[in-house]
Amino acid sequence: MITLLAGGTGAAKLVDGLIQEVDSAGLTVVCNTGDDIDLYGFHISPDIDTILYALAGMGDREKGWGIKGDSFFCLESLKRLGYETWFQVGDRDLGTHIHRTLELRRGQTLAGVVDSLCRAFQVTAKVIPMSNDPVETRVVTPSGDHHFQEYFVKDAWREEVVSVYFKGIGHAQPAPGVIPAILEARAVILCPSNPVTSLGPILAVQGVREALRATRAPVLAISPIVGGAPVSGPTHKLMAAQGWEISPVGVAKAFEDIVDIFVIDTRDHEETSALSAFGFEVIVTEIIMSDGAGRRKLGRRLLDVLNSR
Amino acid sequence: MITLLAGGTGAAKLVDGLIQEVDSAGLTVVCNTGDDIDLYGFHISPDIDTILYALAGMGDREKGWGIKGDSFFCLESLKRLGYETWFQVGDRDLGTHIHRTLELRRGQTLAGVVDSLCRAFQVTAKVIPMSNDPVETRVVTPSGDHHFQEYFVKDAWREEVVSVYFKGIGHAQPAPGVIPAILEARAVILCPSNPVTSLGPILAVQGVREALRATRAPVLAISPIVGGAPVSGPTHKLMAAQGWEISPVGVAKAFEDIVDIFVIDTRDHEETSALSAFGFEVIVTEIIMSDGAGRRKLGRRLLDVLNSR
Repeated sequence: MITLLAGGTGAAKLVDGLIQEVDSAGLTVVCNTGDDIDLYGFHISPDIDTILYALAGMGDREKGWGIKGDSFFCLESLKRLGYETWFQVGDRDLGTHIHRTLELRRGQTLAGVVDSLCRAFQVTAKVIPMSNDPVETRVVTPSGDHHFQEYFVKDAWREEVVSVYFKGIGHAQPAPGVIPAILEARAVILCPSNPVTSLGPILAVQGVREALRATRAPVLAISPIVGGAPVSGPTHKLMAAQGWEISPVGVAKAFEDIVDIFVIDTRDHEETSALSAFGFEVIVTEIIMSDGAGRRKLGRRLLDVLNSR
Repeated sequence: MITLLAGGTGAAKLVDGLIQEVDSAGLTVVCNTGDDIDLYGFHISPDIDTILYALAGMGDREKGWGIKGDSFFCLESLKRLGYETWFQVGDRDLGTHIHRTLELRRGQTLAGVVDSLCRAFQVTAKVIPMSNDPVETRVVTPSGDHHFQEYFVKDAWREEVVSVYFKGIGHAQPAPGVIPAILEARAVILCPSNPVTSLGPILAVQGVREALRATRAPVLAISPIVGGAPVSGPTHKLMAAQGWEISPVGVAKAFEDIVDIFVIDTRDHEETSALSAFGFEVIVTEIIMSDGAGRRKLGRRLLDVLNSR
């Protein structure tokens, strides 16, 4: 069993690569829910859905989110009715949100909803939200205090980040299965997701970081920084707000207590010795997954590294 | 000002015909809400929407409901997730239901929601729900007690009808503007809608029938029965359950106290004398609106009849 801690787009690419090389029934994916948002009366869990769609082979690989070939006619109607439509909800995707909202309203847990989605989409991997309790990633910028999606999607992460906090994290229990998935895994992978707002909330859930320290499984992380810049999104701005150096070393420092194997891109090979100094096994390989073959290649490489332990 | 009492499909056809001949700003349409249903977490008002879409030129004229050219991808997703999908909700149409549901949830009245939809769709006619209070048309058949939509759509009105009742009607106040629209109209038209379950609920709202009796405006009804059969749907089964004869005379008896002008189809011309005996002015014309030209022709004819009073 391999357990992944996952954000959205970057994690979905890796999941896509791994399931080309390994039976997805052997994967457990613990998903960030700090990006969850209530919009148009629906509870939307963007990271969970991106992972589910990737596992089901339904995901839009071009966009990195949503369902392949989805249309946006309902959103057009909402726009005509005066709604803000910066958060793109596809017509097919909407079915997922309607289902989740109805189930949560009748008392189902988020984990229970994800289970039902897995069954409907014939996903054999185990997908677990980090917590059934609400956590909301808030991004403070010079202009104010924003929901992560407002900063990320609506404002297209234009501003510098002052600080980040996870509203509700103090009361967030790990969802059932999260801690065992870490303690009993053969290996744990921290996906190449934003370390602050994608992995950060998962690591901040009670007991998760402790479990990562305690597990006998090797914990592997993939750098979200390549050549001094983020592979995608505002990772650099979010890291800067934490006072972290924008480099694999900056990420490594934040994960020093939990990681055993650190994977960096070939163009960052000269960071190897600095990273080795943390006591990590450092793997240098091509980590930009620009197409399906690239995803599969990285997936294969990680499996080989883990199998060799 | 002409005021129409309207159900869905048949009324929408007449509305479509009238607005080709008269400025729609001169129309007030009081809509049945007994067919309203809560599905997938949305409050759906099928008759109101059919009328709004017709007035906005957005309606699907072939089907008689929904938005022209709409897709059903969200519904397909819901089906995959195990939901019953006998009630067809289009992707574009869904925007309307999301908006209505959100507005009702934040305390807006149904009439207020309809106003906002009129503005968004640039509908200049005044559209008013019969009541802001919930009324639910229930159809009792040998197999049980059903919501009207279950009988009509899900079961495709297969069974005979034992009885019909309007749940909540005792507490249903007319929406603001309904009674003045009848009392102050230049003419009132009872649309060629199902007299039991489309016009029936409107007529049963407190004060509506009294206003129709009291108004000085001529009240015109169009027979929903032609050649001994309903123009569409289960009108005959619903009329039979009321003990009404399935004929223009059967309809006329039910409306005897409120109607001044009764419009029947040419093929029912021999009923003229029986209908005249009720004291009605009887108009014999082609009332099947099989295409846009037929709608316009009937609209023109009704306007001429009303203008001659």
